[in-house]
Amino acid sequence: MSRSHSPQQFVLDEDTRNLTSSHTDSLLGLPEARLGEDSGLDHYPPRPQEDEKPRATDDSDPEAALLGPPNPSEQKRPPIQIPTRDQVEEIKRNPRKRPRHACLVSCGLVGLLGIAWLTTWLMSLGVSVGGQIQVILMISDGMGPASESLARSYVQYLASVNATGMDGSSLPRSLLNQSSWAHLEAGFRGRPDGQGRLPLDDMLVGTSRTRSSNSLITDSAAGATAFSCGIKTYNGAIGISPAQSPCGTVLEAAKRQGFATGLVATSRITHATPASFYAHVPDRDLETEIADFLVGEDGSDLKGLRVDFAFGGGKCFFLPNGTDGSCRTDSTDLLARAKEKGINVVQGMSGLREYHEQGGTDGPVLGLFADDHMDYEIDRQSNVILANEQPSLKEMTTHALRYLTAKGEKGKRKGFFLMIEGSRIDMAAHNNDPVGHVHDMLAYQTTVQYVQRWVADQNKHGIPTVMISISDHETGGLSVGRQITSAYPDYLWYPEMLANATQSTTYLGHRLADRSSATEDWIRSELFERGLGIVDASSKEVEEVHRARSDAYRANRILADAISRRAQLGWSTAGHSGVDVNLYAYGSNSTGLVGNVENTDIGLHIANNMRLNLDVITIELNKNLKAWFDPSRGKQPDRRTGLAHYHGDF
Amino acid sequence: MSRSHSPQQFVLDEDTRNLTSSHTDSLLGLPEARLGEDSGLDHYPPRPQEDEKPRATDDSDPEAALLGPPNPSEQKRPPIQIPTRDQVEEIKRNPRKRPRHACLVSCGLVGLLGIAWLTTWLMSLGVSVGGQIQVILMISDGMGPASESLARSYVQYLASVNATGMDGSSLPRSLLNQSSWAHLEAGFRGRPDGQGRLPLDDMLVGTSRTRSSNSLITDSAAGATAFSCGIKTYNGAIGISPAQSPCGTVLEAAKRQGFATGLVATSRITHATPASFYAHVPDRDLETEIADFLVGEDGSDLKGLRVDFAFGGGKCFFLPNGTDGSCRTDSTDLLARAKEKGINVVQGMSGLREYHEQGGTDGPVLGLFADDHMDYEIDRQSNVILANEQPSLKEMTTHALRYLTAKGEKGKRKGFFLMIEGSRIDMAAHNNDPVGHVHDMLAYQTTVQYVQRWVADQNKHGIPTVMISISDHETGGLSVGRQITSAYPDYLWYPEMLANATQSTTYLGHRLADRSSATEDWIRSELFERGLGIVDASSKEVEEVHRARSDAYRANRILADAISRRAQLGWSTAGHSGVDVNLYAYGSNSTGLVGNVENTDIGLHIANNMRLNLDVITIELNKNLKAWFDPSRGKQPDRRTGLAHYHGDF
Repeated sequence: MSRSHSPQQFVLDEDTRNLTSSHTDSLLGLPEARLGEDSGLDHYPPRPQEDEKPRATDDSDPEAALLGPPNPSEQKRPPIQIPTRDQVEEIKRNPRKRPRHACLVSCGLVGLLGIAWLTTWLMSLGVSVGGQIQVILMISDGMGPASESLARSYVQYLASVNATGMDGSSLPRSLLNQSSWAHLEAGFRGRPDGQGRLPLDDMLVGTSRTRSSNSLITDSAAGATAFSCGIKTYNGAIGISPAQSPCGTVLEAAKRQGFATGLVATSRITHATPASFYAHVPDRDLETEIADFLVGEDGSDLKGLRVDFAFGGGKCFFLPNGTDGSCRTDSTDLLARAKEKGINVVQGMSGLREYHEQGGTDGPVLGLFADDHMDYEIDRQSNVILANEQPSLKEMTTHALRYLTAKGEKGKRKGFFLMIEGSRIDMAAHNNDPVGHVHDMLAYQTTVQYVQRWVADQNKHGIPTVMISISDHETGGLSVGRQITSAYPDYLWYPEMLANATQSTTYLGHRLADRSSATEDWIRSELFERGLGIVDASSKEVEEVHRARSDAYRANRILADAISRRAQLGWSTAGHSGVDVNLYAYGSNSTGLVGNVENTDIGLHIANNMRLNLDVITIELNKNLKAWFDPSRGKQPDRRTGLAHYHGDF
Repeated sequence: MSRSHSPQQFVLDEDTRNLTSSHTDSLLGLPEARLGEDSGLDHYPPRPQEDEKPRATDDSDPEAALLGPPNPSEQKRPPIQIPTRDQVEEIKRNPRKRPRHACLVSCGLVGLLGIAWLTTWLMSLGVSVGGQIQVILMISDGMGPASESLARSYVQYLASVNATGMDGSSLPRSLLNQSSWAHLEAGFRGRPDGQGRLPLDDMLVGTSRTRSSNSLITDSAAGATAFSCGIKTYNGAIGISPAQSPCGTVLEAAKRQGFATGLVATSRITHATPASFYAHVPDRDLETEIADFLVGEDGSDLKGLRVDFAFGGGKCFFLPNGTDGSCRTDSTDLLARAKEKGINVVQGMSGLREYHEQGGTDGPVLGLFADDHMDYEIDRQSNVILANEQPSLKEMTTHALRYLTAKGEKGKRKGFFLMIEGSRIDMAAHNNDPVGHVHDMLAYQTTVQYVQRWVADQNKHGIPTVMISISDHETGGLSVGRQITSAYPDYLWYPEMLANATQSTTYLGHRLADRSSATEDWIRSELFERGLGIVDASSKEVEEVHRARSDAYRANRILADAISRRAQLGWSTAGHSGVDVNLYAYGSNSTGLVGNVENTDIGLHIANNMRLNLDVITIELNKNLKAWFDPSRGKQPDRRTGLAHYHGDF
């Protein structure tokens, strides 16, 4: 009964559908005519409607009635339709495929270009297109379903702990409500309002499928391009299609159509997620070029700045190569260029204080609060030096909302698009560090809570405002439940084991690597006990960390495993996984986005909601492309046209 | 900066809430007054609303406006309120807690009992309570979010494969649609209708939190009791509360109020999930007693049969101890008792054929199609002997729907409650076997597809019908993505590696254990190649299986790991995990159940939807409780009143 198949071939013939039945047939869209039968049972096909008609269906054939395709998606979701780009893209890529429509195609293209130019011209005269709306897209990078369950249980745990036992440090724990834990333990019926849930929990509207064009598991570049352009692309692509032509983003289209635009991230502002909203490069690692886009130095025909407000880390990509702290590949002093262009450059908390006091919202703002990524929230909270340099995600968000609404008040703008990313949720999960992971998630949830109230207030005052919260993918293959011995596992995990940690394992790994004289005693007391709250580290664990003392990453991973094992949390990878992620929305028009959607639907929904014409931007970007876009730059994707197939790795 | 706390204490004093700020404060329900500030930044509290009022809010304090609690759950979900049991249960457990209400309490109790008796008396006269409705609760045991993503990608993969390459065996693969895979690979915009999605995908309405009363990770007994009674209870409890008093179930209440009732499962029909709908025992392992409940031999005051229609496995618990194939602990011949009571006992496919030809729906029906659990779907499909003994989940469902609607047609019934469980999705995941897991999921999806069309048809003909599909918990800590070497992982997994398997790893483990003379060659060709489709088994793998040849379970796990590694699927445990599971609903009134809900909400929603009074049943079950209920039977739960705490296991 061996079965061979050729995965590279595709059946394009209806006749090949005529096969024997199996339980997968109907899932594969096959045998609607077999509905009354059962799989694998040709000797005995039970046809329940054969002798028993459904009630009240005497006037019709019950079998036929059953065979009608009641598609629930049709009932629930209005199709998202934004015209013309599909055709345009398709035509550009495969012009010979539609020879009969040559005239139609060229006429259509000319028409499209005409419309694009008309729109551009109208906008250049200050004419707005589309209505007033404020859209906030929040991205929790790398936060999968298990992460959210973990964060909730952790907060429920904190809520149960006697806060008076705390030492008054910066992470006090008190009650979410007075009886939730006891209540849950004793068993309860129903759900007391507001107890034991996180801010996102009350906004759940669906889930998102995350695969990219070249893999079942996306990276953040393809994930964010799905949100920004509404297209599937290959892993590593920033704002370009699988055919490597730039695609207009919702941020660019919003800016063009008169909205204010903003970006907030805790990663480098040139990292994959934020970059996919304003840049177009074939490889996410081209961060020097990406930084050029952020200050309008990209050379594309899409003139001018895309982003009015940008706060995050990554200053190193704005400093000329050769100077202290630079990671640019060229000698451009991008901060100087930015200032020449009238961009208000804000650096560090002192700069933020000054900016805040001036209250200026006239020109664009670029805030850079770390050379590299901003630090993990738990490290920022535990370390005064970091807290004096870096604002929290929520704080950056308050500035963004203040800036963007002030733009609106001046009457020139009619709303805004703001992307806020909790970037480092993902990075902690890459390290399989539950401490950094959960605290960045709580910083995100705190921001969600703030934004949600702000959105409610705006809508209350008649200003249509919507927030969406989505992850681009899961990271780490996290599981809240882990078997740590060969004995059959208890059904439990211990959030309490995360509660006494004060540093991310990344931070602790670097502390160790910076201290060549570290003894095992120091490792036990400073890293395990003081850093992670682990008071029962085994000699073996301490020795293992000691051996890794010159390798910050390795020490980080050993420490992450020590605390994950104690909490009984499992991880399957240092990379991403392919599980669907949760989708949240709140506010005006948020109900249009519900159920299990494709990640591209999120970008298309935003475009639809703001009445953005992405094609105008795409067409403009593709003009004189060769002058500024080099598809051969960076790592070349080796799987751009097909999914990888198994080649003997196990 | 060490932090100690006492996890066993609970703060019951508002004053203790007055603590220093942190980003967790507001999540813990703390500082609404701190909304404008930010955590950890006392030296610089940015108050964005201080100098910038939101637009159009001149007439009100913007800070106050922000502080208003716009609770989205209030907007979205009507509260589910079924009166009185909370009080009744609470009073029964802690009578001294409410001394001042003694009179009120006793009066209330008397009143409740009066209502219960009145209802019972009215029903005994044939008076129906509640309206007409058909409710189908489908349970995908152990199917977490990652499982669903896995199943979808697997079907998308099958859809892409050239079916003509198949050998015409019982698992043909054809196209879901003609271009989905190529389309996805090339990158696409928008979503062609019906392409690449599984039947459940279009019914997603939310997610369910799964924890039990005594653990963050539930077992199936507590999980099903949440659905059946609408209460949280301890792991292992079947239809009883944490205080070990029986709770009325939706099935029992439905039966009492004149609905027909049915159960379909692929496990033993006495296993935790189905049992929780009709039995009340302190420990799920008391399956002899559970079987007694199914045929009304339980001795409780709730006289008579609860279940009109029951199809599943588990015949061994109906045969007297000492006879061939029995696993009862006593000598009761329960099948004989059932027949004496007029229950139509159906055994095997020949019995089912006979039953089908008779078409009888007058008396109750008990169909038992395996001594133990029914077999995994992939084994049933590959093995003619099994297929000749056991119907598929979908086939059992067609019989259940035929039976239950026929009951309705005779005018005595006004609808039904039917529970359908894809039981063994869970068990394959316990073995970390992706082959058994995915095929039982597809059997479940096929059943969902059938039921959904049936529900659509019923509603079309004016018969209010609703289906809900939910998992009780995740099993295995599955992750679609696994790092198999120390090198940084590619972002991918290979559904193709599951496509040539023909048997579950459980089946293969037993095949090996049954063959003491098995050679390494036989293991390579029969288990790896023919069984799992693995043509590149290493000598080490083959040797390892050979060494385990007398241990079916160990061989099973080695084989499961071999195929999981090749597909790059990760598992964290042989037990369950605590991730939220997906919630699906379709049909009449299904929209009441949306968003992130507690698992108990599902039971309460059904009770509400069918206007069931569970309290009537609870009160009756608790009469003369000592005569039939022994709380000391079975394994005694050691964590009935509190969550376990870390005790040095890592």
